[in-house]
Amino acid sequence: MNMNILVTLNSNYIKPLKVMLKSMFLNNPDDTFTVYLMHSRLSEREVEDIRGFAENGGSRLENLQIGDDEFADAPVLLHYSKEMYFRLLAYKTLPETINRILYLDPDILVINPISDLYNTDIDHYLYAAAYHDLVPVREINKIRLYPYKIEAYHNSGVLLMNLELLRSEADDKEIYGFIEENRLKLIMPDQDILNAVYANRIKSLDEKLYNYDTRYYNYYKLTSNGEFDMDGIINHTMILHFCGKRKPWQKQYTGKFHSLYKHYEKLAK
Amino acid sequence: MNMNILVTLNSNYIKPLKVMLKSMFLNNPDDTFTVYLMHSRLSEREVEDIRGFAENGGSRLENLQIGDDEFADAPVLLHYSKEMYFRLLAYKTLPETINRILYLDPDILVINPISDLYNTDIDHYLYAAAYHDLVPVREINKIRLYPYKIEAYHNSGVLLMNLELLRSEADDKEIYGFIEENRLKLIMPDQDILNAVYANRIKSLDEKLYNYDTRYYNYYKLTSNGEFDMDGIINHTMILHFCGKRKPWQKQYTGKFHSLYKHYEKLAK
Repeated sequence: MNMNILVTLNSNYIKPLKVMLKSMFLNNPDDTFTVYLMHSRLSEREVEDIRGFAENGGSRLENLQIGDDEFADAPVLLHYSKEMYFRLLAYKTLPETINRILYLDPDILVINPISDLYNTDIDHYLYAAAYHDLVPVREINKIRLYPYKIEAYHNSGVLLMNLELLRSEADDKEIYGFIEENRLKLIMPDQDILNAVYANRIKSLDEKLYNYDTRYYNYYKLTSNGEFDMDGIINHTMILHFCGKRKPWQKQYTGKFHSLYKHYEKLAK
Repeated sequence: MNMNILVTLNSNYIKPLKVMLKSMFLNNPDDTFTVYLMHSRLSEREVEDIRGFAENGGSRLENLQIGDDEFADAPVLLHYSKEMYFRLLAYKTLPETINRILYLDPDILVINPISDLYNTDIDHYLYAAAYHDLVPVREINKIRLYPYKIEAYHNSGVLLMNLELLRSEADDKEIYGFIEENRLKLIMPDQDILNAVYANRIKSLDEKLYNYDTRYYNYYKLTSNGEFDMDGIINHTMILHFCGKRKPWQKQYTGKFHSLYKHYEKLAK
């Protein structure tokens, strides 16, 4: 099967992107991918480098350069560039021939076949995403984004999009309005917006399978009665997400999945 | 190039052996292997299972079953079976057509090409092995095995054998004599014997490259001025050795290379 993957990035993330793609190619040998690369300022050489990498893995690259005139109505927030809208407004830019796409952050490893994730039933949802079930995180975000009714704060690093429904039901003005009203409260603008504006239109996925936050190994292991120990993760988790400020490609990183990340990084060279 | 590999094991170690072999096959795509399987009590079915696994990896298996009448002169120590002699007396059993073989423990991952290790110049040595350079370990073993002059206590888990020279110069009676005299002092009989009897006939290899003891990540990193951080290991170390009682295939294991081990374990299934 062919799966559509969306990535958005700047030059700083090309190396992690390749590691993510390499892990995805290796662990999905029966599938191919069309990778949509959404960006505003990558050079032609950088795009061709990524294209070569994707084709080497048996997949295709579609270059989606976003011009200065696109998203012109969008309010610009201090410290944030237009890139913050890429995920939220992807449905307006992606070709109408595709109805489903999986957005993936570049600070990810795909360690098992993801066709189950890709084929998740999202008939009546705009999106599917995992929410981090850590109680304090959830409660803080509920309070912070009040009065928006947020039952679960979803992480937008792994985001399955129902493009067909988004085209007919989503409204960019709703997003812009929310931003104007809440600009001072937003911490991670795109993720906050997604959670507030589309609260009840997001299908919730199990984070331990689909968006495993590598900072919380012990918490997940404990709350799953040991099911998600290292054995359970390596054999069942589809996506490891290296959330937070410390990244596994940085010199000072330590963490449970450091050796595994470095292994894929070597394979991506 | 084809490399000769020696493994010795009982039924309990078949699964780790496969993980070790899988990692070796995957990370040495330009080479093939002839794996000599030395054992006394594996069933025919177990041997054929391992043979299929090796052939699936593009390599060959040679079955070397050791009969009850072999090593008949060898003294038997309390708690230890004849298997303790397999490594030490391999040169007597292996075919005369091969002059060099690399013994590998099954609690190992081979994470980079090992042809440099295999082709180490051992013209005037019987063996090549790494010694663990941790000061207390070294000192304790020097005292324990006094009056034998031991400059470095080598770990016998990765052992390159000069079979040609062993056939002409080694003497099993020397080994048996040593055992008779020291039976009460021996902790790891085969390794102790190797170090005491052949002290100055073993070429010393750098453990950080050829026999990395996974328990000492911080020590190695510190004493190498950071050269052997995770990046250095994954890109340069050939062999990770999961020394000690706790093994990465056991439920309660934790360690720096746990995720990487589980990754190879999955690939070996």
